[in-house]
Amino acid sequence: MSSPKSQSGQIDPPSVRAIRGSFLDFVDDPFYAPEAESARYIADGLLVIEDGKIKAFGTYTDLQSEYGDVFTTTYKERLMMPGFIDTHIHYPQTEMIAAYGEQLLDWLNQYAFPTEKKFQDKAYARKIAEIFLDQLLCNGTTTALVFAAVFPQSVEAFFEAAERRNLCMIAGKVMMDRNAPDYLCETAEAAYEETKTLIQKWHHKGRLRYAVTPRFAITSTPEQLRKAGELLKEFPDVYMHTHISENVNEVAWVKALFPDCDGYLDAYDKAGLVKERCVFAHGVHLTDGEFQRLSEAGSAIAFCPTSNLFLGSGLFKIEQAKSAEHPVKLGLGTDIGGGTSFSLLQTANEAYKVAQLRQQKLSPFQALFLATLGGARALCLEETLGNFEIGKEADFIVLNLRATPLMAFRNAPDAPSTLSELADQVFSLIIMGDDRTVQATYVMGEIAYEQESFQWPCS
Amino acid sequence: MSSPKSQSGQIDPPSVRAIRGSFLDFVDDPFYAPEAESARYIADGLLVIEDGKIKAFGTYTDLQSEYGDVFTTTYKERLMMPGFIDTHIHYPQTEMIAAYGEQLLDWLNQYAFPTEKKFQDKAYARKIAEIFLDQLLCNGTTTALVFAAVFPQSVEAFFEAAERRNLCMIAGKVMMDRNAPDYLCETAEAAYEETKTLIQKWHHKGRLRYAVTPRFAITSTPEQLRKAGELLKEFPDVYMHTHISENVNEVAWVKALFPDCDGYLDAYDKAGLVKERCVFAHGVHLTDGEFQRLSEAGSAIAFCPTSNLFLGSGLFKIEQAKSAEHPVKLGLGTDIGGGTSFSLLQTANEAYKVAQLRQQKLSPFQALFLATLGGARALCLEETLGNFEIGKEADFIVLNLRATPLMAFRNAPDAPSTLSELADQVFSLIIMGDDRTVQATYVMGEIAYEQESFQWPCS
Repeated sequence: MSSPKSQSGQIDPPSVRAIRGSFLDFVDDPFYAPEAESARYIADGLLVIEDGKIKAFGTYTDLQSEYGDVFTTTYKERLMMPGFIDTHIHYPQTEMIAAYGEQLLDWLNQYAFPTEKKFQDKAYARKIAEIFLDQLLCNGTTTALVFAAVFPQSVEAFFEAAERRNLCMIAGKVMMDRNAPDYLCETAEAAYEETKTLIQKWHHKGRLRYAVTPRFAITSTPEQLRKAGELLKEFPDVYMHTHISENVNEVAWVKALFPDCDGYLDAYDKAGLVKERCVFAHGVHLTDGEFQRLSEAGSAIAFCPTSNLFLGSGLFKIEQAKSAEHPVKLGLGTDIGGGTSFSLLQTANEAYKVAQLRQQKLSPFQALFLATLGGARALCLEETLGNFEIGKEADFIVLNLRATPLMAFRNAPDAPSTLSELADQVFSLIIMGDDRTVQATYVMGEIAYEQESFQWPCS
Repeated sequence: MSSPKSQSGQIDPPSVRAIRGSFLDFVDDPFYAPEAESARYIADGLLVIEDGKIKAFGTYTDLQSEYGDVFTTTYKERLMMPGFIDTHIHYPQTEMIAAYGEQLLDWLNQYAFPTEKKFQDKAYARKIAEIFLDQLLCNGTTTALVFAAVFPQSVEAFFEAAERRNLCMIAGKVMMDRNAPDYLCETAEAAYEETKTLIQKWHHKGRLRYAVTPRFAITSTPEQLRKAGELLKEFPDVYMHTHISENVNEVAWVKALFPDCDGYLDAYDKAGLVKERCVFAHGVHLTDGEFQRLSEAGSAIAFCPTSNLFLGSGLFKIEQAKSAEHPVKLGLGTDIGGGTSFSLLQTANEAYKVAQLRQQKLSPFQALFLATLGGARALCLEETLGNFEIGKEADFIVLNLRATPLMAFRNAPDAPSTLSELADQVFSLIIMGDDRTVQATYVMGEIAYEQESFQWPCS
């Protein structure tokens, strides 16, 4: 099909285009449904895109009569998946990745707070926002739930950058009014007003969404948490994004700060912050009752294994979040800069190891579900993102399972013909993959990142 | 200085050459000595090499008058370190890296044993040995203590390949006479004889050394362990290489198999296998008494964090191995294929995380000590390897601390001017580094691996 000419005489991109190759996505949750029913693999498939959305998806054989003459890009020996969704990350901490030697509370004081101070300068915030988004895209992450800094201009810089790239991003300014340096604290009222202004400007602007973002119960007074709760009432479809029960000393401190509350989660609950669209990062030390309450409320947990190991926080109980009785929405988070990699593949690697240390199994399909449809569900975005269902937005990635010499040696070039062969290959993707594995990242059907062709160092 | 001409008229490489740039090595153990005294950093240094050995090492200023006209390769914005030493790895398991879902004993039966069977075919063993050595070199590893398979030809193939590359490698054929498939078992006597023949052929052939290699107490009868002990008596400077206390079920099984022994280590001890040059992989579940016995005996432990996490084995007690009272020689092991990376940098990343989970700190200098001089001491090779002391063999690597866009963003190009700046940079090397960080690997003063110049995918 030839490209139509625009009025100016230039060639416009075709309004309908297609991608042909192997596809993997999830149509159900492999923690509950059999993997053969939840993982959908099409060895020779066609994804048809119109105006950035998925118009058709299925086997090439089924779709070729209708779409055979559409402008088509074919990827051989590659695997297409929905874009990865990172359910917890701090963009101002990009530069302080790999900060040495502390556990959570000291790490915040020594590294995180001084770094976040720099984001008072909007020009600086703009620069880091671009580097951060470059890193997300080259790691195959197309959507993230993002902590900015306390300064409204840090949110402005981030949303402006995300909007230019047409990305679906959720972010918010940090709210703190105690137990942090003065230069990062403000009154509960001021944080409320600033947040409100940002919500009105940015929430639902294109693909952007706002998250009310109290850092955690230690740095917010009960008054500030109540104000955050008020915002959720005033704007019922904004998000709430915070931390919970990451570290044993943190949990103890929260109990001391909120003597009238029945545990850490209750400090948020009493403020009206435990409901749908509320996402809690970590949850390593949640109690049984807290897991149950999160399940009832429809809230979500962001499991951040590289961070939990790096800061020595502990081992998250995946099987409890994904229990049959009280299932909690669950996504993966890199938690940069507490986490050690922007890659959700490397994050899944350590999620698998956390499960193993607890004598549990995390299958490759379960891990990739968490990184895609599971993340979309955790962020209440499953209507528009997370898999290749018709009508969804065409954010997807092109993976090379033979991206390094060692992966090329381990994995045969042929597309797997059975689910178990596929499971074996995608397991190596999780254990051995990194940014090199991501050949291209598409946002709303357009290429947003593409690896240059180059020689790998060892053969 | 111009190169001399050989008699044939061709240009010979100069017999004396030098490397100029920044150097880091260890002259003492930073677990015991202050880091300022144990880590040696020279921002502008010169390493002078003659006949593969270090002839001089110091600041460029000090050495320039004597060696200023020697043929010199200068590396700008790079860090030279001694080659990494991997104290536990299985070369026949290269292809089965990232094998899904099991803990130790099932993993052996399901994946390791069937894979090792292939090494009966020497041509196959040759092919894998080359791929394995490529992987070691591109990850900066110049010496390793290596499990081959049970078949003598698997050892022959490995040593032949290592000899061609002039590498210092220690390896041995696996000995098993029970609790493994018939196709991998042989009598204690046969294993003894085959091992003896291999020792006589290969031990001290050039830079090669032999390790008597009973897989572990589960797959060797007391009779086979005694035979292994006899070999250590007959050949007092060969090594012994085995596994110990990796997994709780393994420990329980050994106790049942050796009812007369006082624990797992004692099963080896009674056979004369606990002494100098004896290296025990894992040791996750060693008792206090066993740590003490290893200390007294001068034996070593290979700590294999990526494997211990991947197989869910547990968290090694680094601080107990490095205690003041009963210090045990300690090195790092990748334990491919139970481990998940050939990189000792990525191995150090997870060593740090293991320490953090146990509320301990592992400093970047301590981790890099384990990967270099610590490994050399664990393998009793400190007379010839492990740092840049004059007279030692010139196995070293050229590291690029800005090898990826994210590392380039985090780390300034200037050489660090203080020990704490250096610590911060090398910590990022451990947490973010991988094979991309290794620009070149030198063996006996000659380049054995060099990254081609290429563009990284994201900027």
